[in-house]
Amino acid sequence: MQLGFLGEMAPQIRLVEESLAENLKGEGIQEVTAYLLQGKGKRVRSALTLLAAGSFGPLPPTAVPVATAVEMLHLATLIHDDVIDGATTRHGLLSLHRRFNERISILLGDHLFAKAFVLFASVGNVRVVRTMANVVYEMCQGEIEQNLNCYQTEVQTEGKYLERIGKKTAILMGESCRVGAILAHAGRAMEDAMYDYGYNLGLGFQITDDLLDLTADTERLGKASGSDLKSGVVTLPLIHALKAPGYAGRIRELLRPGIGDTEVAEARELLAAAGSLEYASVMAEKHLRLSKEALVRLPEGPNRNLLQKINDFVGKREF
Amino acid sequence: MQLGFLGEMAPQIRLVEESLAENLKGEGIQEVTAYLLQGKGKRVRSALTLLAAGSFGPLPPTAVPVATAVEMLHLATLIHDDVIDGATTRHGLLSLHRRFNERISILLGDHLFAKAFVLFASVGNVRVVRTMANVVYEMCQGEIEQNLNCYQTEVQTEGKYLERIGKKTAILMGESCRVGAILAHAGRAMEDAMYDYGYNLGLGFQITDDLLDLTADTERLGKASGSDLKSGVVTLPLIHALKAPGYAGRIRELLRPGIGDTEVAEARELLAAAGSLEYASVMAEKHLRLSKEALVRLPEGPNRNLLQKINDFVGKREF
Repeated sequence: MQLGFLGEMAPQIRLVEESLAENLKGEGIQEVTAYLLQGKGKRVRSALTLLAAGSFGPLPPTAVPVATAVEMLHLATLIHDDVIDGATTRHGLLSLHRRFNERISILLGDHLFAKAFVLFASVGNVRVVRTMANVVYEMCQGEIEQNLNCYQTEVQTEGKYLERIGKKTAILMGESCRVGAILAHAGRAMEDAMYDYGYNLGLGFQITDDLLDLTADTERLGKASGSDLKSGVVTLPLIHALKAPGYAGRIRELLRPGIGDTEVAEARELLAAAGSLEYASVMAEKHLRLSKEALVRLPEGPNRNLLQKINDFVGKREF
Repeated sequence: MQLGFLGEMAPQIRLVEESLAENLKGEGIQEVTAYLLQGKGKRVRSALTLLAAGSFGPLPPTAVPVATAVEMLHLATLIHDDVIDGATTRHGLLSLHRRFNERISILLGDHLFAKAFVLFASVGNVRVVRTMANVVYEMCQGEIEQNLNCYQTEVQTEGKYLERIGKKTAILMGESCRVGAILAHAGRAMEDAMYDYGYNLGLGFQITDDLLDLTADTERLGKASGSDLKSGVVTLPLIHALKAPGYAGRIRELLRPGIGDTEVAEARELLAAAGSLEYASVMAEKHLRLSKEALVRLPEGPNRNLLQKINDFVGKREF
């Protein structure tokens, strides 16, 4: 269990872990899926679905398969993105395409996508399927836009950044919450409150993630730090610094293919001096606050308290 | 239009072509999707869905989006399979990962999967989604099994081969027909007849495809011939020859990584002499006959006649 901050719901998350293992076993790819499930994923998205689904009464029996499918979608996109981005590590392990090969990564990603939709469809609610198909579509668009916009410093704005990380990260977290409310038949107002909580949590999470990519060391992060900078992904601190007089010129020079740790370190210094790291941190806090405010619209109870704890965890995480 | 054998339904197939173009445009990948849609795909699977859906009365409005989504699934699996198999050409063009790169292929495949499920979910019928999610799952399993079983001459049997090509090819063709009947609310008996027609058509199609990979020249095929043999994929003629006294030994020797055109030509001679090409041809005919027999259970009319024509086309194709 890697869910210290969610110890209270360990039994439920264990259901998801078991369901993941059960749904991925004995299918010719045992060794690969066993490796995948060793990774230190925190299963946050499936926790969101379970907590949302259980916020309005007893946990509906559809919640575990849907939460499992949500996690599968997340894993599938990580596996394909790691191939696309050439990532070397993930969740503290060698990335799957490095440990095995790219063919296996493509196949396992597709397998997880397909299995996820088998599970989504199994609960017989077409809104769940429609919602999650749209999520995958938006995530692909986010990844495509990220790839197209590498090194494109001119076209980047804070608005476009938020839209892109919305697609890449926040929509999945928002909809992971919403489908829980859908399964619980909680009504539109509750669904929307869940979505607002999860979407803003996702924005806060991704802004923090992008910040940590610049500031945390590789060992704590579980993946190479400075990787966004090295691959030309323009994140919020950079967008801020590109408008800062006295910093923009040098930052623009540093944003080029083939830079190494020296340039990453220099960029980090400049981003700190320009107040850009601080700015991103304030923006992450802002979205986490919006997320927290959405919780007020939800019924009081242990699940809401746990959703609050996840929010606290995202705000405090340093890895 | 590449659908000479289906000229009578050209207007309907054009709806799918337009819907494909419409659903894939203006999304940051214009150049890539334009290239994809240049390929000489015959749109057989979407034709099956349209013909099935229109077999029981006027074409339901849900048929075009579902037929479009069926074609997208097919294209997505081709794109990913081509990366996995290292294919150089497809539909008479350079394969997408050769023309662009593997990252683009992974992204576009995922994009097509996602968009397909958005369209499947848009018609509001959970059985359609469940059916097609299962198809993708089985197709992934088929591709995984094909990869695991390369060069494994000991474990191959005719039964396993049929099961594998069932997953890879025939289930999609069967379910492409069945969803048409589902959309037309034609009832289980009609759904099953449609599936039996499409599934056996798919088996006949794939056995022929595997045979042509050994016998047709590269130019007519639109992809490199002998590619299965070169990559160790054990198809029906090989399985037959591996049981033929006087041939099995040499065939087994030829089935090794790194063989070239000389060995392919020798294998072709041996397979002809052993009657293995003939055997596969007879098996293809058998399944096409089963497919044709299922048509008798369907209502008479122009759509049934066109389904018959597709069956005739598959039986006669030489490329």
